[in-house]
Amino acid sequence: MLSKAQIKHIQSLQHKKYRQKYRQYMAEGDKIVQELLQAGLVQQVYATADWLEEQGPLPATITAAQVHVVTPQELRQLSALTTPNRAMALLPVPPAKEPGDLGGTISLALETIQDPGNLGTIIRIADWFGIPQVICSPDCVDAYNPKTIQATMGSIARVRVTECDISTLLQQAGVPAYAATLHGRSIAEFSTIQEGIILIGNESRGLSTAVLERSAHRITIPRLGSAESLNAAVATGIICSKLLI
Amino acid sequence: MLSKAQIKHIQSLQHKKYRQKYRQYMAEGDKIVQELLQAGLVQQVYATADWLEEQGPLPATITAAQVHVVTPQELRQLSALTTPNRAMALLPVPPAKEPGDLGGTISLALETIQDPGNLGTIIRIADWFGIPQVICSPDCVDAYNPKTIQATMGSIARVRVTECDISTLLQQAGVPAYAATLHGRSIAEFSTIQEGIILIGNESRGLSTAVLERSAHRITIPRLGSAESLNAAVATGIICSKLLI
Repeated sequence: MLSKAQIKHIQSLQHKKYRQKYRQYMAEGDKIVQELLQAGLVQQVYATADWLEEQGPLPATITAAQVHVVTPQELRQLSALTTPNRAMALLPVPPAKEPGDLGGTISLALETIQDPGNLGTIIRIADWFGIPQVICSPDCVDAYNPKTIQATMGSIARVRVTECDISTLLQQAGVPAYAATLHGRSIAEFSTIQEGIILIGNESRGLSTAVLERSAHRITIPRLGSAESLNAAVATGIICSKLLI
Repeated sequence: MLSKAQIKHIQSLQHKKYRQKYRQYMAEGDKIVQELLQAGLVQQVYATADWLEEQGPLPATITAAQVHVVTPQELRQLSALTTPNRAMALLPVPPAKEPGDLGGTISLALETIQDPGNLGTIIRIADWFGIPQVICSPDCVDAYNPKTIQATMGSIARVRVTECDISTLLQQAGVPAYAATLHGRSIAEFSTIQEGIILIGNESRGLSTAVLERSAHRITIPRLGSAESLNAAVATGIICSKLLI
């Protein structure tokens, strides 16, 4: 049985202010919680008895005191989702990190991505393509938003998320930047790369002029039909695939 | 001022049962409603006074009797979204259509896509790449679900959505099928195509064995990292880009 204080604490983690205050975030969903448990990152688990039974023994990194059996009704109270799952975990928000040395690797840098689902899907794309780091401008949506975490499908455990002003980053990076824009060279003209920063901009406005001006390459997915734009995560996937495979 | 009957009718369109009964669906959002108005498809508009003022004269296809000025509070009551917009439109669900002749064109066929956001994003991808038709298996999520319509960003007005059992379709299609699967040939080995069906399967299970067995080509986006899968709409975008550009 959950105390009122526990319920209040977990519900508060739906808001960035409290995630920053307690340095903790929540992750929901059978598979995501499984992956995060395997990664050894989980501080507390709240799950239904049947879910826990299906898991068998939990990893040695988690003690009995960290596991809380809850009813589906209780889980619904804690959940940030309209269709709650059978398991939820609380995890530590890692300390804010700077991007570090970008030489010899591929990175993704995001300017002002606003939709939590898009950010989560982009982190999952980075994980698929083996891109170790996603760099977010300070005005991107919070990577520890429950909807972002949900959309990462567990990839948040493997991809390093760092924060930095993107225009400043490009001045110091020392590796070529590939900026996604509607007015660049067709992706058909690009070959695979070994190092560089792939830049993705805001869902409606795209990348800022300052960032575009500091990019060595401007890359465009040709429009063959009539849609005004592509979803930001879809565009990210297409460009990563073209530059990496 | 809206009548109780109007409010009840519009709210009922959040459910497939009533969309089928009334052959009508709702679309929300400034840009989507604008696009659908331009396309001449709208039966009724519900919008705030300031939104209507910003639009200037509406297209000649819509009469004053079809335009309803509502308050933000009223719009919130009608909305299927947690963050409602300033405009909503009601449109006719077109009669169910069969795929028709697929020769000489590219089509997208979807088997058991369950997430409304994914289906909408895929319809938007089709529109971007000039793919005229998206064929859905009967157990796909409804294309006229408010969340699907929202994710199409207006592309629902331009892409033909048809329904058909995908395995049956492949028996009769007479054009090559390109099936997205985790166990096929790398997309790097494929060149652009002039005709064919691009096949995308369910978010967790992928395509059925029956469909895979009837596909001439199995196409895989190589995994360079650790994520278990890619989002279905992202995978669709990557494969469309590779086969069309």
